[in-house]
Amino acid sequence: MSLLVVGSIAFDTLETPSDRVEEILGGSASYFSAVASFFGPVQVVAVVGKDFDNGLLDFIKEKGVDFRGVYVEEGKTFRWGGKYHEDINQRETVFTELNVFENFKPKIPEEFKKSSYTFLANIDPDLQDEVLNQVENPDFIVMDTMNYWINNKRESMIKVLKKVNGLILNDSEARELSEEYNLIKAAKIISQMGPGMIIIKKGEHGAFLYAEDKFFFIPAYPLDEIIDPTGAGDSFAGGFMGYIAEVGSLNFSEFQKGMVFGTIVASFCCERFGLERFKNLQKNELDKRAEDFLNMIKL
Amino acid sequence: MSLLVVGSIAFDTLETPSDRVEEILGGSASYFSAVASFFGPVQVVAVVGKDFDNGLLDFIKEKGVDFRGVYVEEGKTFRWGGKYHEDINQRETVFTELNVFENFKPKIPEEFKKSSYTFLANIDPDLQDEVLNQVENPDFIVMDTMNYWINNKRESMIKVLKKVNGLILNDSEARELSEEYNLIKAAKIISQMGPGMIIIKKGEHGAFLYAEDKFFFIPAYPLDEIIDPTGAGDSFAGGFMGYIAEVGSLNFSEFQKGMVFGTIVASFCCERFGLERFKNLQKNELDKRAEDFLNMIKL
Repeated sequence: MSLLVVGSIAFDTLETPSDRVEEILGGSASYFSAVASFFGPVQVVAVVGKDFDNGLLDFIKEKGVDFRGVYVEEGKTFRWGGKYHEDINQRETVFTELNVFENFKPKIPEEFKKSSYTFLANIDPDLQDEVLNQVENPDFIVMDTMNYWINNKRESMIKVLKKVNGLILNDSEARELSEEYNLIKAAKIISQMGPGMIIIKKGEHGAFLYAEDKFFFIPAYPLDEIIDPTGAGDSFAGGFMGYIAEVGSLNFSEFQKGMVFGTIVASFCCERFGLERFKNLQKNELDKRAEDFLNMIKL
Repeated sequence: MSLLVVGSIAFDTLETPSDRVEEILGGSASYFSAVASFFGPVQVVAVVGKDFDNGLLDFIKEKGVDFRGVYVEEGKTFRWGGKYHEDINQRETVFTELNVFENFKPKIPEEFKKSSYTFLANIDPDLQDEVLNQVENPDFIVMDTMNYWINNKRESMIKVLKKVNGLILNDSEARELSEEYNLIKAAKIISQMGPGMIIIKKGEHGAFLYAEDKFFFIPAYPLDEIIDPTGAGDSFAGGFMGYIAEVGSLNFSEFQKGMVFGTIVASFCCERFGLERFKNLQKNELDKRAEDFLNMIKL
């Protein structure tokens, strides 16, 4: 079934302990759609500047992603600079140039409005709300967010939270949103704010699901080497939502399987800079790793 | 089958963000034996000072633990002071008073020498080696260690590592021992040093097993509240070794189940200060939580 994502397309400049890349394709919508397209059709709403070369999206387009909701505006494309330290869980933002993203008003094309599954990537909660005002009764709406919105647009966030079915966020975001350090308690508190399904990601320590009053814990896929974790969270969301949209079934057991795929695609994401690893990744490699992973977590 | 542990008995002074306790029973051998006794008989070798009240061990003794290897020496009992911060994974040693532990020369009583399972808790690797020179061909020897020995007695450690079957250590210890930050690589490197079974503990992020060229990952049991994590690692080892000694079978599948019990007892340990939670804990509570936990990690 169709899956809509509203998020960012960006140029990222990334520095890790061993390497540095400049102005490579990034952004939540890029990662999410590249990954979710392994499972079915994806529709993207985002904005780029006049400086953006649409050819950069070709390899994603070929995987069945519809970019008709990507608007080209006067000005420059969103740029982000990040730096990672030896503890790859620790990321530092070097710079953020919003550029055209600053005035982004997501307009959902008519042909996207009936998408059954909607993912609101990390954007201003007021904009997430505007998306929800345009889509026509999706079966399942999941949102992401970031500390900045939690701290600066708390009321707007809380308003959107009431309208979504699920929230995928990381540990520090969960702590700030719930105002509770313990993540188990945090998940329960956030669930009271609206979303029936919460996934809290803990980077290299895996993730957990809270839904239907039950918990499910999953470790990260073990990697010998992490080249670049940028986009791993958006990839996780893409794998999760892609799988859920594919099976078209909303229950705890499917959420669990979605998390397995989320975990696997996040691991592939970390193996190369940016979206590089997804350029030639085959679905059977993904399935093979999922199988290996299941053997590492089952008793 | 019989299980021997050589380690410490101590008085701990502990401070957490919410509370403080002084001179309560602690030490690796106390935690290990209190927990392992849920599964079968345990024999303890340790040392205490003249100031130690043997009555403190009564509740463990009643669970079938043989303390005939605990020697009383002139001087004071080992004392340790620790402080925890909000991120309960972060521990600070406030003081260490070795006292009688400083001259500890483990002497294994005749009746303990034929134990089939031996756990060398965190003591000087030269002493661990002396224990191995006294025991008579145990089926399975597992050791623990700490950063201090890795850094200050590296050669002795490496000598002992060649003689043991398993090593249980935490993430920072694994990194220092292997001189490798990535824990997956670290496990493989350490395995080359001798032990065929490696368990790396990651505190609230769970633990993983590397043996028979395979990995197994397990999260921590989720707790709403962590009162005091002191002894959780020794409890984990006690649950693991207790289970293995009970089933008397050494293979990957049993190691996995041992880790489930290790995880569960570590969670109980954290619910109260010191050994308090083990005073009235029943085996059926332990089994019940293990069952709940399996439901949280299985797909």
